[in-house]
Amino acid sequence: MFSGAQISLYPMSDDFADVILGALSALDPYRDQLRIETDDISTLLVGTPDVVMAAMRDLFVAAAKSGKHCVMHATLSRGCPGEPDDPICHVPEMTGPLAPLEERRAQALAAVSSIPLAGQPTAAQFSLYTLGIGQHMDEIYGCIDFIKSSGVFDKSKNFCTKLRGDAAPVFATVGEAFVRFGPPQGHVTIDLTVSANSPSAI
Amino acid sequence: MFSGAQISLYPMSDDFADVILGALSALDPYRDQLRIETDDISTLLVGTPDVVMAAMRDLFVAAAKSGKHCVMHATLSRGCPGEPDDPICHVPEMTGPLAPLEERRAQALAAVSSIPLAGQPTAAQFSLYTLGIGQHMDEIYGCIDFIKSSGVFDKSKNFCTKLRGDAAPVFATVGEAFVRFGPPQGHVTIDLTVSANSPSAI
Repeated sequence: MFSGAQISLYPMSDDFADVILGALSALDPYRDQLRIETDDISTLLVGTPDVVMAAMRDLFVAAAKSGKHCVMHATLSRGCPGEPDDPICHVPEMTGPLAPLEERRAQALAAVSSIPLAGQPTAAQFSLYTLGIGQHMDEIYGCIDFIKSSGVFDKSKNFCTKLRGDAAPVFATVGEAFVRFGPPQGHVTIDLTVSANSPSAI
Repeated sequence: MFSGAQISLYPMSDDFADVILGALSALDPYRDQLRIETDDISTLLVGTPDVVMAAMRDLFVAAAKSGKHCVMHATLSRGCPGEPDDPICHVPEMTGPLAPLEERRAQALAAVSSIPLAGQPTAAQFSLYTLGIGQHMDEIYGCIDFIKSSGVFDKSKNFCTKLRGDAAPVFATVGEAFVRFGPPQGHVTIDLTVSANSPSAI
């Protein structure tokens, strides 16, 4: 199993580089559990989904606390057949048989409801893709059912689902969608955008 | 068939709103061929892939000409079983049987090589997802073969492929990937990021 994310942080500010550099220490608690590589487009985080999502959340919240309009984009992936197995990515959720949708939905809701708040309002939208299987929409609709009960559901949009709420349950909801839907050892990806401090927020 | 994109434009500047508003007239030539809806996270463009890609390219180039570091993100989708059929989206590439990979690769290369340059250097990365089919990596590897011959291939990264070059062939390459790979009436998505004027470009 290989899992991780290509992430990018966009502060809409003349001092965008300083906002990013000022937020990077938020990654420090996670550095020994991640492999990190940066280029001019994105930063790769390789690790277990829980660590990757927590690192993304803390980095985004640190940047958003600047008060600037900030957006984070992430391309999440697990189980891609083209990637090598990596021990740094192993977690129980990604082994074993595929449990019934209702059971996974309950596990996801329990995980989201136990998260302490981060104190940062956000809006977000994401698309879940379960690859290499027929009937892929069953998993996607099952995931949408979970999201509608998550407490951070905002609305359905074309091609994605929109969330709104505190950064902690928002990132937790996306993280649960990522590990609980699609086969445990299957190829699953997410296209995620998270926004804070937008002047056009409604 | 339903196709389009959720797009977002991120100028890394205090006057980000003015950069976006100043670029919007680039969409004018396409407005009668698109359905457009905006909220605080993204703008939906519904239309044929060629029109959607051209509109995205012109909007991005107009924003990048400001000289500010600008990034565009797009979630492209066609053929999603959850979306209604829409006559505004009909194109010949998305009907008929699936042609052999080599034939589609040649068509894609011919289309990219005929594009006039836009005069705007860019870096980009994208992931192609062909959903609801087994052996999905065959289409993805076929697409990567095309990209390596496109003239704008930069490098393979985890979870995505990176492009570099003039905005016109970069957007054309992504557009060809979108319509030529995966079954004509299948569910195909792309997670795309395009960047210009980055101070950390290498």
